[in-house]
Amino acid sequence: MSSPSPVLISVDWGTSAFRARLAAADGSALEAVEAAVGATGLTSGAHEAFLETQIGGWMRRFPGLPIMLSGMVGSRQGWVEAPYVACPAGAAEIAAAATSVPAARIGRVVVVPGLSARDARGAPDVMRGEETQILGALGAGGRADGLFVLPGTHSKWARVEAGRIVDFATFMTGEVFAALKDHSLLGRLMAPPDATDAASAADGFARGLAAAAALERPGDLLHAIFMTRTLGLFHELPAQGLADYLSGLLIGAEVLAGAQGAREACVVGSLGLTARYRAAGEALGVALAPAPENCATLGQIALLERMGAP
Amino acid sequence: MSSPSPVLISVDWGTSAFRARLAAADGSALEAVEAAVGATGLTSGAHEAFLETQIGGWMRRFPGLPIMLSGMVGSRQGWVEAPYVACPAGAAEIAAAATSVPAARIGRVVVVPGLSARDARGAPDVMRGEETQILGALGAGGRADGLFVLPGTHSKWARVEAGRIVDFATFMTGEVFAALKDHSLLGRLMAPPDATDAASAADGFARGLAAAAALERPGDLLHAIFMTRTLGLFHELPAQGLADYLSGLLIGAEVLAGAQGAREACVVGSLGLTARYRAAGEALGVALAPAPENCATLGQIALLERMGAP
Repeated sequence: MSSPSPVLISVDWGTSAFRARLAAADGSALEAVEAAVGATGLTSGAHEAFLETQIGGWMRRFPGLPIMLSGMVGSRQGWVEAPYVACPAGAAEIAAAATSVPAARIGRVVVVPGLSARDARGAPDVMRGEETQILGALGAGGRADGLFVLPGTHSKWARVEAGRIVDFATFMTGEVFAALKDHSLLGRLMAPPDATDAASAADGFARGLAAAAALERPGDLLHAIFMTRTLGLFHELPAQGLADYLSGLLIGAEVLAGAQGAREACVVGSLGLTARYRAAGEALGVALAPAPENCATLGQIALLERMGAP
Repeated sequence: MSSPSPVLISVDWGTSAFRARLAAADGSALEAVEAAVGATGLTSGAHEAFLETQIGGWMRRFPGLPIMLSGMVGSRQGWVEAPYVACPAGAAEIAAAATSVPAARIGRVVVVPGLSARDARGAPDVMRGEETQILGALGAGGRADGLFVLPGTHSKWARVEAGRIVDFATFMTGEVFAALKDHSLLGRLMAPPDATDAASAADGFARGLAAAAALERPGDLLHAIFMTRTLGLFHELPAQGLADYLSGLLIGAEVLAGAQGAREACVVGSLGLTARYRAAGEALGVALAPAPENCATLGQIALLERMGAP
């Protein structure tokens, strides 16, 4: 039995990581490469050279195979800017706005645009890369509607209707956690990361979720954050549980605000982080169903089909 | 006309600053010294030596004058630990728990204890130094009841009934602002501090306050924080207004949560920071009346009277 043929070189290139897959029609990876090289940290002109070092072998073995890139690589700070598409937008609108880049050494590459949205008060929001993952999750789940959460440094909550992303909001949960842990008084009482203690971590996370559920006014979050310190000072949580208290508090507050009263959503992302969000959702009455991990590739294949053969 | 006699060497020694006043009975400073030397950054034993360099001259001119210290100098990381007094607590409870330190070179010093409180869910909170300022503000205002806000890195909101602090809450507003500005993506689009532009700053602050007032769920704060970036990306606020947007958002959220529906409070602190809080309060329907700037000294004099002559 021969192995399936690849249909796409699928690249997900964000702020901190590069992931490329030689993808079959069903979205599975025949081969894959990853590198801790962000698309926004390279000098102008370096993107194509780096890409060639990563996927050059595939290109020579499968000449003419389409190459598609999504993520921050399409931002002003990345390789080439693919302007934001305004919501509502589905596969048709996103495919129509994809930017085709003539690259000297590796031929044409397609860069997927990001999305923009306005909240009820008119403030703008943006995503890059998550729109492709959402398209993939829609296809994988055989659905055209629902609420999607993509946890991360900048978590996204997106609402989809009839196959189109109608609105979304970014929550800065991951970056707020890191900034407070590493650059505020709160980190001082925390045990070092190597001092693992699963029971204390689970206790801290549960305390944080309970604190999130008890918040009344938005500014109370600025108060509950400070409890990371006082729970440590009064020995009411061990040092090994303090980071998890802060994590549970912030993730819990995000889940309750992102869900806006909904009782279920689809969670898209890496296994470790989605497990954490699913535990938070379970404690807070929001069932989070996991999508496959290869949603970025699945979304790109859906876009490729929209665009027709190159 | 002879100058009034000093009654106290009044020292307010916190995490980052040392302030000493040669104080008259009305709380006015006959002389004052300040230094950017925090009480928690000194090695054990160095506190007395430093204090002597600052107030030795006064001690020799006015032998036997009482010396009182409040603030983080009384914490475990300071000079000598003056254990927390549990709320409710007023001048009587605080004076009774003051710690008298026999210091070899400068004689007896009195260290004011901090306060602890429990919120409705039983989580602990602490203050050190603010209790003394609140006592001073009570005396200066000729009142025994009210809501008091002490803005800062760790803002405190305290409720006073019949002269006693019955409960309080800390909001980590100042430190969250600094951590996000200096150690997250949000700082990247902000103009450098020397690029002053009063109109943009005022516009940003007002936008931040409006965003705070519009928050629905606590976790929405994690979303509105991200608007610091997107308002810059979309050129809806100039780079000179982005830090003030974030400041207005956080201070506004704090004021609404700290006031808990109250329409007025007394604000205690330095002129610049209280002005910022008063502007926020005005926009959000919470009238913040300023207390005198020498509340720490006024509070110490009230405690001195409670304790009787040394």
